[in-house]
Amino acid sequence: MTKISHGVTAPRGFLASGVSSGLKGRRPDLALILSEVPAVAAGVLTINRLAAHPVRLTRQSLGTGKAQAILANSGNANCCTGPQGLQDARQMREITARLLGLSPESVLVASTGVIGRRLPLRRVLKALPKLVHGLSRRGGKSAAQAILTTDLVTKSAAATARIQGRRITIGGIAKGSGMIDPAMATMLGFLTTDCAVTLPGLRQALRQATESSFNRITIDGQMSTNDTVLLLANAAAGNRPLAPGAPGWAAFQEALESVTAQLARAIVQDGEGASRLIQVAVSGGATEREALRVAKAIANAPLIKTMVAGADPNWGRVAATVGAVGIPVHPGRVAIGLSGIVVFRQGTPLQVNRLLLKERFRKPEVSIEVNLNRGRGKARVLSCDLTHGYIDINAKYS
Amino acid sequence: MTKISHGVTAPRGFLASGVSSGLKGRRPDLALILSEVPAVAAGVLTINRLAAHPVRLTRQSLGTGKAQAILANSGNANCCTGPQGLQDARQMREITARLLGLSPESVLVASTGVIGRRLPLRRVLKALPKLVHGLSRRGGKSAAQAILTTDLVTKSAAATARIQGRRITIGGIAKGSGMIDPAMATMLGFLTTDCAVTLPGLRQALRQATESSFNRITIDGQMSTNDTVLLLANAAAGNRPLAPGAPGWAAFQEALESVTAQLARAIVQDGEGASRLIQVAVSGGATEREALRVAKAIANAPLIKTMVAGADPNWGRVAATVGAVGIPVHPGRVAIGLSGIVVFRQGTPLQVNRLLLKERFRKPEVSIEVNLNRGRGKARVLSCDLTHGYIDINAKYS
Repeated sequence: MTKISHGVTAPRGFLASGVSSGLKGRRPDLALILSEVPAVAAGVLTINRLAAHPVRLTRQSLGTGKAQAILANSGNANCCTGPQGLQDARQMREITARLLGLSPESVLVASTGVIGRRLPLRRVLKALPKLVHGLSRRGGKSAAQAILTTDLVTKSAAATARIQGRRITIGGIAKGSGMIDPAMATMLGFLTTDCAVTLPGLRQALRQATESSFNRITIDGQMSTNDTVLLLANAAAGNRPLAPGAPGWAAFQEALESVTAQLARAIVQDGEGASRLIQVAVSGGATEREALRVAKAIANAPLIKTMVAGADPNWGRVAATVGAVGIPVHPGRVAIGLSGIVVFRQGTPLQVNRLLLKERFRKPEVSIEVNLNRGRGKARVLSCDLTHGYIDINAKYS
Repeated sequence: MTKISHGVTAPRGFLASGVSSGLKGRRPDLALILSEVPAVAAGVLTINRLAAHPVRLTRQSLGTGKAQAILANSGNANCCTGPQGLQDARQMREITARLLGLSPESVLVASTGVIGRRLPLRRVLKALPKLVHGLSRRGGKSAAQAILTTDLVTKSAAATARIQGRRITIGGIAKGSGMIDPAMATMLGFLTTDCAVTLPGLRQALRQATESSFNRITIDGQMSTNDTVLLLANAAAGNRPLAPGAPGWAAFQEALESVTAQLARAIVQDGEGASRLIQVAVSGGATEREALRVAKAIANAPLIKTMVAGADPNWGRVAATVGAVGIPVHPGRVAIGLSGIVVFRQGTPLQVNRLLLKERFRKPEVSIEVNLNRGRGKARVLSCDLTHGYIDINAKYS
C-alpha cells in the first residue's frame, strides 16, 4: 500500500468539478464527481430520524448497487424543507442526469449547510451546465473545495495497492468542521476507486472502513441530518471483481481504511475552533461497545475539552466522566493516564511530575488513556478541544 | 404557602456557620448546619460510580434516618483520593462531632471542588473549632457562601406553609456552577425544616422534590462525583409527624418544591459563563421518560447552547438534535417552536416574522418547545447558554 496525494480523481476513470452557484457568496458550493463508466456503489448514511431529502433520495438509489455520479452542494442542507425540498432535490438530480446523459437514479445526491431553509433552486440549476462542463481529470481539488462549510482546509486523500498484479487506487474527499459525531458516517465523504469489487464486497468494505474511522471521531457530539459517505468502484483497473476473502482483499481493505482514516483525522484536525487533538484510548471494557461508550463520553465531555484547551491536566474530570457513564466500574480498578503518564490507579492518585505532565499537555496532540479492568474491550476515539473559536463560529452561523 | 427570603436558618431550631480554612485562599470554604435537636434525615446522592468519600460516609449515615448536623467543604472534592481520603473524611467528621458533643454518624458530610487531590486535612481540622464557635441563628448566609466554588452568587431560598394550624418553614442553600447534570441531585443542596415528618414521608418528599427541580436542570451535561442533597426535619414547629397523604401533606410538599425549584433555577442562572436561560419544553412523548430524553438532549447540545449565546434562532439545530436522539419520531409530525413562535410543523418550515423571533431570542430567557406528537409524555428542563465564560473558567480550573 502506498499513500499518494490526490483525491477523488486519483483513480482511473473519474472526473470531478466544483463551481460556485451563489449559495455561499462567491465560494464554490457545487461539486460533481463522475465515473466514465457505470460503477458499483455503496454508501453509509446518517441514522438521524429527520434525515435530509437528498439523503432519502440517495438511500433509494443505493438499493440498486449502481451509480455513475455524485452531485453535492454546500451552504444549504435541504433538510426540514417540506415536500418542496424533496422536489428541489429531485430536480437538481434530474437536470444533472440529463446534462450527463444518465438516468436520475444513477446520480447520487448530498447536501450540507443550514437546516430548514429552502434551497435557492434557480441559482443551483443555472450553475449546473458550468459544473458539468468543468469536469476534468484534475477536478478533485475543486470538488473538495465546493463541499466545505465552516471547514478551513480541504480534505482529500488517496492510496494505492497491488491486486492481482495490477495497481489499484482509492481516492477520497471529505468535509466536517461542526455537528460531527457521526453514528454512521461523517458529514460528507466521497470515495472513488478503479478497483473492481463485487457489490456485497464493496458494501462490507465501506461499512468496516467507516466504523473504524468516521464513526470513531467526534467534534461536538452532534449528529447531523445529512451525514453521507459514498464509494464508487468503476473497475477501470481491469482486475477480476474482488470479493471478501479473495486474494488481494486485505490489501484493498487496508488501502480503503488508510484513506478513510486520513480523512477522519483531517476532519477532527479542522474541527470548529480546534487547537489540539485528543486521542482517547479506553481498554479493559467488558465489551468493545462498553469501551466505546466510555471513550465517546470522554471525547465529548465539555469539561475535558476545555481543560485540554487550557493545557490543564486535571484528570479528576476524566474520573468523574468514567463514573457517570452508567457502567458499574469499580473505583479501585480504574486506571487513568494522561499522554502516557499514569496518574490514578487502585483508587489512589499517583505522585507524578506535574511539570512533565503540563509540558505534554501543551503539545498539539494529547492523549487520555483509561483502563476499566473489566474485560478485553478496547476502543479509540479522536476528538478535539473546545475553544472560543467554536462558540464564535456557532453563535452566528445561520 | 409564602416565600420568605432566608436560607437554612429560616426554620426554627437551626444554626449555621461558615469560615475559611484556606482551601480557596481567603474565601470561606467550611460550612456547618446544626439542628438543636436530633432530626429526621433524608438525602439524595450522586449515582456516579466514582462517588467521593464523603458521599459514601453520608450514604451510610442516612441509613439510620437520623442526623443532627451537616458539615461541608468547598475547594476540594475528596474524590479519587484513595484510602487516605476516606480517613480524612472520617477525621473531619469525628472532630466536628466531638466539638458538638454528637456521635460521628449524626454528622453528614459533603465536599466539592477539585477531584483527585488530597484534602489539606490539617488546615481543615485547625479551622473546625472556629466553625463550631461561629454557629448562629443568622449563619445561613455564611454557610451558603462557604459551599460555593465557581459560583458568582450565593443561592438560598425558604418557604412557609400552615400545617395543622401551625406555621412550618423550609429553608435551603445550594451551590452549582459547573459539572451540572445531576442524575440524582445537584452539586450540593442542604435543606432544613422545623416541620415534623415521618422518615418514609421525608424520603419520599425529598425524592419527588429533587426529581422535579435538581434533576431537571443542566449546565454542561456533566454529572459530578459529589452531588448531594440533604434534608433535616427537626420537628420544632410542634406539629404531629406528617406522613404522605395526611392533612397538610400537599402543603408541605408544595413548600418543599418551591424551595428546591428556586435553588435549581438559581443554579442555572449562575451557570458557568451563562448569559441566558433556556427553558426546554417537550410534549407529545410516548412516555414522560422519552420526552425527558429529548429535552435533555436539546438542553445539552453545544450547537443549541452556542446559538442561544449568539441570539441566533437557528431552529434547524433543534430538528437535528431531535432526530439524533434515537427515538423513532416521524419528521412529518414533529413541531418546533422558539419562545412561543411555531417555526416548523408537518415537515415544513413556517413563514415567521424573523425580526420578532430575533427580538425574543435577545431576552435573558428563551424557550424551545418541541411536540413529538407520539403520546402524552411531557418534560421540562432548564439550561443555559454556552459562552466564552464557560471556557475561560474551565480551561484553567485546577
